[in-house]
Amino acid sequence: MGVIVQKYGGSSVADVQKIQRVAERVAATRGRGSQVCVVVSAMGDTTDELLKLAQRVSDGNPHRRELDMLLTAGERISMALLGMALHARGVEAVSFTGSQSGIITDGAHTNARILEVRPVRILEELGRGKVVIVAGYQGVSREKEITTLGRGGSDTTAVALAAALEAEVCEICSDVDGVFTTDPRIAPGARRLSELSHEEMQELALAGAKVLNAQAVEFARDRGITIHARSSFQSGPGTVVRKSATRELRISGIALDAEVLVVRGAPLELLQKHGAWPREAWDDRAIVPLENVHGLPALLADLRGYEVSNDLAQVSIVGTGIGASKEPLDRALAALELTPRSTLVAPLRIAFLVPRDAAKDCVRRLHSEFIERS
Amino acid sequence: MGVIVQKYGGSSVADVQKIQRVAERVAATRGRGSQVCVVVSAMGDTTDELLKLAQRVSDGNPHRRELDMLLTAGERISMALLGMALHARGVEAVSFTGSQSGIITDGAHTNARILEVRPVRILEELGRGKVVIVAGYQGVSREKEITTLGRGGSDTTAVALAAALEAEVCEICSDVDGVFTTDPRIAPGARRLSELSHEEMQELALAGAKVLNAQAVEFARDRGITIHARSSFQSGPGTVVRKSATRELRISGIALDAEVLVVRGAPLELLQKHGAWPREAWDDRAIVPLENVHGLPALLADLRGYEVSNDLAQVSIVGTGIGASKEPLDRALAALELTPRSTLVAPLRIAFLVPRDAAKDCVRRLHSEFIERS
Repeated sequence: MGVIVQKYGGSSVADVQKIQRVAERVAATRGRGSQVCVVVSAMGDTTDELLKLAQRVSDGNPHRRELDMLLTAGERISMALLGMALHARGVEAVSFTGSQSGIITDGAHTNARILEVRPVRILEELGRGKVVIVAGYQGVSREKEITTLGRGGSDTTAVALAAALEAEVCEICSDVDGVFTTDPRIAPGARRLSELSHEEMQELALAGAKVLNAQAVEFARDRGITIHARSSFQSGPGTVVRKSATRELRISGIALDAEVLVVRGAPLELLQKHGAWPREAWDDRAIVPLENVHGLPALLADLRGYEVSNDLAQVSIVGTGIGASKEPLDRALAALELTPRSTLVAPLRIAFLVPRDAAKDCVRRLHSEFIERS
Repeated sequence: MGVIVQKYGGSSVADVQKIQRVAERVAATRGRGSQVCVVVSAMGDTTDELLKLAQRVSDGNPHRRELDMLLTAGERISMALLGMALHARGVEAVSFTGSQSGIITDGAHTNARILEVRPVRILEELGRGKVVIVAGYQGVSREKEITTLGRGGSDTTAVALAAALEAEVCEICSDVDGVFTTDPRIAPGARRLSELSHEEMQELALAGAKVLNAQAVEFARDRGITIHARSSFQSGPGTVVRKSATRELRISGIALDAEVLVVRGAPLELLQKHGAWPREAWDDRAIVPLENVHGLPALLADLRGYEVSNDLAQVSIVGTGIGASKEPLDRALAALELTPRSTLVAPLRIAFLVPRDAAKDCVRRLHSEFIERS
């Protein structure tokens, strides 16, 4: 009997009714004979609300070890409620924290990496026929400290578990039916992609696409895990992310990271101290996604004297072969109708730093040029 | 350097401002040179709100193992926020869950008893000069399952830690300045008691007084721990609960348990199955405080066919020597102005079951007779 890992994001467990619908879907999967391991995020805006409390109580500079202790309460709540909803339907279920699940990470609070998964208790309970519910986004260090994996970390939990449990499928369920060429709320012509390579998906995620977490896709690529990104409540086909060998130019989509902090010349240790590890550095510029920063005022205070821009966004075109010739860059620069503050060309991506208030227009123009016309 | 254990109840950490005031108080205690171990409850109404979610998601019958997983999120939030507030004031602090603190309990979910405390990590961090913050109300079983100690269990955590750490003082801080002869909101003539014996306090708590948990007082009695019940934010003298040898008649107070379920003839196993272990049984009647019942509709369904009263309250007069002669009972029955449904006389207590809607009047009459006149 095969194992299926299903991950449900925060908007899929945002209230009691949605948790009950997830319970129905899990019960149906279990009823078809598979062993089911469910990974859940925190309910709806819980994480943001906890973050706000943390900011207020600490004058904008929460202690990172205590922040991890705080934030992990979020998945604890959603997993326990899902456990109760399954029991109320007569389905035997048991919920485990990251620590109980054997998710061992390094000690980098608020942005830890999974080192190892020891799913002893999970395998034991799956073997007893129970549905196992695992708290996403969290783990435990070898020093027995509670850690979190950074934004979107529940996806990483799901993929790491799929690898450790040798699962048939790793389903990442959210409120959208898969991966789109860009955010449909910005460009109405956005299309669902039926299939993507791990590398393309990783590049999209790194560039700001929210549907799958970049570290999770990297993990899946390294372990050869196929991810099925699909809707929690609709039965659409979703998007399959798998190993692929294509070498032709193929545009995956346009990604937006709406709020980045660009820091010039500052030592990386200084950024690391604030948990503001840059996603990437272009020349001497470090690009820090704002969502990773939990103590912005304190960070900005420490960055006094360095050149800091807090009014930029990053727009990326992601696709296999896009960085292999000059033609896509020329097309992109012509389509943009503005001169970007900075430009990156990489094998799978062309990215621009643009003023934050022009970013959505840039997405629409690039989507129209590269996706809708082709 | 001595250890001080301070426990702060839910109303003392109900919002960010109050948590910051608690942090100031803890910092001041630390500043006077003591090692400080702080035990916190969940913020304000958090536990009640989580219970409501649990009821809704499970059609009124939450799975008890999952309920413990859910409810323990509450203290996790308050302890992490207090940790951040202390760090923001420059005080080194570290928060620990019940499990990390070494609070080992039996496996009775939602109503576990502490078997042992192994405060290895706490002692290590106190030795490093840190303030240690411990999640009240929770522990871990030998099977590594998360458990809770029942309502008011944070007091028990504090006393058990005070014993294990050989603390100088165990302060139980709340929004009232100590133990009163009855609830001042019911009887305005209520007076603060400056000192009580463990036995008197235990009897008051068992009879429904909320200020200290009965299991906590029992623990303190057995280990010879002196408890100082006092206000979190006022500097009043509070109430000292200690070993005492008095044998004279001394009335401690009038206690009310406003909602009890009285069940006649039902097997105790049936009640235990629902976590509705009776506080006591008089003849064939079991008295179950409603606040201990998490799935009332399911319990009532299982009790069909037995005699169940869900319209009663219990009013008690607690005092040393009160059950040693007939005179206090006669005075009480005369003062009540109604015929109680049932009467108990015990060495330290006379208790009556009365209609729920007459209970507060009964408290006022007994308080007037036994406290205000004497």
